[in-house]
Amino acid sequence: MIKLRPLPRNLALLVVVTTMTAGAGPATAADDEPPLTALQRAARSDDRFMPRLEVLSDDVGARLAGSPALARAVEWAEEMLREDGHVNVRREPVAVPVWVRGEERLEVLAPRYRSLAVLALGGTVGTSGVEAPVVVVSSFEELSPAVAGKIVLFNVPMSAALPAIEQYGAAARYRADGAARAAGHGALAALVRSVAARSLATPHTGGVVYLPGVARIPAAAITVEDAAWIARLAARGIEVRVRLELGAHALSDAISHNVIAEIEGAERPDEIVVVGGHLDSWDVGQGAHDDGAGIVQAIEAMRLIRQLGLRPRRTIRAVLFANEEYGLSGGKAYAAAHAGERHVAALETDLGGGRPRQWGATGTPEQLAFLARVAAPVGVAVGAGGGADISPLGAHGVLLIGLYPEDGPYFEVHHTHADTFDKIDPVEAREGLAAVVGLVWQLANEPTGAP
Amino acid sequence: MIKLRPLPRNLALLVVVTTMTAGAGPATAADDEPPLTALQRAARSDDRFMPRLEVLSDDVGARLAGSPALARAVEWAEEMLREDGHVNVRREPVAVPVWVRGEERLEVLAPRYRSLAVLALGGTVGTSGVEAPVVVVSSFEELSPAVAGKIVLFNVPMSAALPAIEQYGAAARYRADGAARAAGHGALAALVRSVAARSLATPHTGGVVYLPGVARIPAAAITVEDAAWIARLAARGIEVRVRLELGAHALSDAISHNVIAEIEGAERPDEIVVVGGHLDSWDVGQGAHDDGAGIVQAIEAMRLIRQLGLRPRRTIRAVLFANEEYGLSGGKAYAAAHAGERHVAALETDLGGGRPRQWGATGTPEQLAFLARVAAPVGVAVGAGGGADISPLGAHGVLLIGLYPEDGPYFEVHHTHADTFDKIDPVEAREGLAAVVGLVWQLANEPTGAP
Repeated sequence: MIKLRPLPRNLALLVVVTTMTAGAGPATAADDEPPLTALQRAARSDDRFMPRLEVLSDDVGARLAGSPALARAVEWAEEMLREDGHVNVRREPVAVPVWVRGEERLEVLAPRYRSLAVLALGGTVGTSGVEAPVVVVSSFEELSPAVAGKIVLFNVPMSAALPAIEQYGAAARYRADGAARAAGHGALAALVRSVAARSLATPHTGGVVYLPGVARIPAAAITVEDAAWIARLAARGIEVRVRLELGAHALSDAISHNVIAEIEGAERPDEIVVVGGHLDSWDVGQGAHDDGAGIVQAIEAMRLIRQLGLRPRRTIRAVLFANEEYGLSGGKAYAAAHAGERHVAALETDLGGGRPRQWGATGTPEQLAFLARVAAPVGVAVGAGGGADISPLGAHGVLLIGLYPEDGPYFEVHHTHADTFDKIDPVEAREGLAAVVGLVWQLANEPTGAP
Repeated sequence: MIKLRPLPRNLALLVVVTTMTAGAGPATAADDEPPLTALQRAARSDDRFMPRLEVLSDDVGARLAGSPALARAVEWAEEMLREDGHVNVRREPVAVPVWVRGEERLEVLAPRYRSLAVLALGGTVGTSGVEAPVVVVSSFEELSPAVAGKIVLFNVPMSAALPAIEQYGAAARYRADGAARAAGHGALAALVRSVAARSLATPHTGGVVYLPGVARIPAAAITVEDAAWIARLAARGIEVRVRLELGAHALSDAISHNVIAEIEGAERPDEIVVVGGHLDSWDVGQGAHDDGAGIVQAIEAMRLIRQLGLRPRRTIRAVLFANEEYGLSGGKAYAAAHAGERHVAALETDLGGGRPRQWGATGTPEQLAFLARVAAPVGVAVGAGGGADISPLGAHGVLLIGLYPEDGPYFEVHHTHADTFDKIDPVEAREGLAAVVGLVWQLANEPTGAP
């Protein structure tokens, strides 16, 4: 851990004096700067955002649920939140499945030998070696009994000319469900073209979902380049034969932790605004965009509110979820433990540290109207959407809000070795922080009552 | 090999009739379309450019000097040039050094275990394992006896905000000379940050140059991301300890071949205009931009001139050089064998298949004035520059011309696993072909005599 220089006190003092005692009233700045303005200004010059993300990225690094690295991330997060002086700083246990990548190898045996970059999909079974010709398909509809005894390659391209987020869901289906669908037709293994529009020979992992009663076959991602190559050869009638070895295996379930901290509400402490992201990442890269940026935005949003001495009407609760990537058990555990509480809204950042573009929200018409009203001064438009970690709260009627930043860089690097600290643009990521802290403040301090 | 559909004959006939018999006169099109215009129009709609580059990329792939793959590339190139009906199609032997990558592994042992992506630099000695702390430097001036017994990381960033070509030379010095310079101070091995501005966890190889009397230490490239990570840790005083294993080794010299073909000049057959690129590549990726695009531009420039029935005043000679990447012996061998001939100019494409930006030329003032005059109608500006393969001809007074296209994508992928066919934009690459065929035609058909 590095020791970090505290924010200059004079900045904090400027806006604090009256608000610390104002208690139930709306927080205002000593020099008449409204709290929202002061918070967003502080966010844009936050000198801890990057050092904290650097430590999470560089010292902790990749942190899959159940791993020792995630345990270090939990410790780090608790330490930051305590250092910042929050209340009710705690960890809450989350049972997580544990999966280990192991050694992996994908070799092309024909038409000529090549060793390809490969990343097993999270949760896949291992194989000591499966060898077969490849059948290339670009949709589930192309699967047939002809793939029996073969290895299926799902080659579903994304276009760099279209926004990634509009294509991601459709392409990621093949990553999640390809193995089960191919196994249903007798395939021996599934390969998936990495879910990305732009690649520099960069495989992307992600989770695979098996189905009850369907054979669990090995599943792995290859690069966009290699998938395109195999597809071109297949289109010319050239058989591609490969051998896949995956050391992937499951271990016993383990306990990871959601990390929680609060700024207690002055007027309505039982009304809770959640701000969070997921502390885990896939087991490659540093999880800098996915979701280190979101985690540090949540931590820094909390710190700036406290640093400026602002006391919100409602309670603001940071929730750093233990496990999003490998089965969402962090979000599920939080909802199971806390759904009975009065959540006014849950806000999540999990699309990277890019420049904010819009909020994506899910809720009742009244909740969405409330959001539109409180979000208006924050300077980011509202659209439809949400977030994975907070989604289990949706079933309990909680207003769900996700930050949707410019996500081109995020989708290029997420789930890869390239999701590293150097990919974070500090100006853009702090602009995201300004949006997050602004909206959290508005949600927590709105005076007339939330739906 | 795939069988390719011939260019529609009617297109060729449109412009041919008089010119095939015109012999010594300037070529003109039957329908009054000037040859330059007809050639450039045909280049922009060339339907063989991409299929030919596809075969070179997908079927031959990476083709280091001395490798069986380069021998396949030589065969393929000869076949194409014969199929297109050229004269004097031949291969000329080139002695090439032979180097084999072997297995390679770079492990970080502290502050925490990680296995890093690594590419040995071409020509490096191997090592069964060298383990030491890393010293990070960003210039040769920072080397000192303090690096003795250590592994030096040359961490010299390139900026994505500046043109790659303006920074490449300065950064690539550390790749070429870093090992010798570090060894001079007693270092055990040299690591180099990949020479690239943008990376998605993509190591770039390149050649290392040892010096007589200086210890030959192992040298390898790591990704931009990992170099930046190690440098950040070092800046915080955290020692990084690594272990490097390289299976790299040299084999005996071998014979590769320059591939040559001609369109004989009608008026001045002894005056030669060379058009070429290098047939070899590094041993990763497909050499699609570096230099498959240049090779196929040379092949297609020749084919289009013949296909349109145009007969230039001077001889046009395609030279596909055997070995640029690993010591330039292709260009040296060509110059040694042919420098006595009358070369009017040598034109090379070796900066990828991007949209043409300018010609870079080296020559006497008279030669450059000649070039400026003949290049004017081609539509690409003239600046300073040249090309590696043709550079040995420069010592013999030959006018050297390199195509300088928009090279951002080229520098992102060259010398990597990501230099693949999917990176070629057909419109841009054929625009490059239009420039090449246009200038070759102008050079070969200029009526008043070249300096």
